[in-house]
Amino acid sequence: MSKASWKGGALLAPVPPVLVSCGSGEKANLLTVAWAGLINTRPPRLSISVRPSRHSYPLICESGEFVVNLPTCRLARAVDWCGVKSGRDVDKFAAMHLTPLPAQQVSCPLVAESPVNLECRVFQRIPLGSHDLFLADIVAIDVDEELLDAAGRLQLEKADLLAYAHGDYYALGRRLGSFGWTVRKKKPRR
Amino acid sequence: MSKASWKGGALLAPVPPVLVSCGSGEKANLLTVAWAGLINTRPPRLSISVRPSRHSYPLICESGEFVVNLPTCRLARAVDWCGVKSGRDVDKFAAMHLTPLPAQQVSCPLVAESPVNLECRVFQRIPLGSHDLFLADIVAIDVDEELLDAAGRLQLEKADLLAYAHGDYYALGRRLGSFGWTVRKKKPRR
Repeated sequence: MSKASWKGGALLAPVPPVLVSCGSGEKANLLTVAWAGLINTRPPRLSISVRPSRHSYPLICESGEFVVNLPTCRLARAVDWCGVKSGRDVDKFAAMHLTPLPAQQVSCPLVAESPVNLECRVFQRIPLGSHDLFLADIVAIDVDEELLDAAGRLQLEKADLLAYAHGDYYALGRRLGSFGWTVRKKKPRR
Repeated sequence: MSKASWKGGALLAPVPPVLVSCGSGEKANLLTVAWAGLINTRPPRLSISVRPSRHSYPLICESGEFVVNLPTCRLARAVDWCGVKSGRDVDKFAAMHLTPLPAQQVSCPLVAESPVNLECRVFQRIPLGSHDLFLADIVAIDVDEELLDAAGRLQLEKADLLAYAHGDYYALGRRLGSFGWTVRKKKPRR
């Protein structure tokens, strides 16, 4: 367990490489954000970090709204491509054959092909250096009905979510347990 | 692609269920935080969210320091257990047979069994409701030398990292590509 000592770097992993939709109408755009995280449970809140040089940055500042579309392995190509191309030059929805759908609570479209869409409204922006941090309320969620069981519960394990770690995209693999499993009493054998 | 409409909820996934170490000496403690994310590249910065009721909360507030220890599948049991037990009642390092090691830049110990340790210093705390958001600089990194190749490059894909999604722990699965793969020119065939 010998350790090498490095200076600081952005090395948290795995992180979610989400497709963020923003803007509206003909100005709607997509960008990929891996610097994203949950920040609060009640009320539900998350953050995304965006470089001010990005085409999407003023779109998010102006409307104060965006949608976090959870990435799947099937969307890996679009996730990567939308992370390196600019909406200044191309319509990313059209180029990636993604379908914009109206959201419930915000003006920007959600990505139909993403199984879970988190509609967000910004309540604070904090410049941090290379990126600005947008803190946002998750005001509504759209979920693929195909992922709901008979009781209406979300079976997210069927969504084949995509993760990002140190420059690489990964599928989620085997399930190891659910929260609290180490302290739950086992059911008695019959 | 029919969508069910839900109210907002904390449903970003996958997220990193990191082991956070804090405090020092006999007061050193561990807590599990899945509400964690990268927030800035230059300078490298991340955030964690902690409930004020947690035993670790005043420890982080007092010292302004913590270490984010990346979780592996081998640590899944400790990650889950440290997320439901309190350091008020038990020494989590001892109970989980984890080894505290001195950090380079901060006073709290790092977890030797974690392959990558991010030493962090808080620069802002923002109360958000159920949780407080700690924004922190990543001031140093400790990396298992076993994960470095001959050129000293980190092979994080060998670390068997753990992810968390909607209440379940997952291993990372197959690698699908590296950042920018969709626009890279293929090497010419010989």
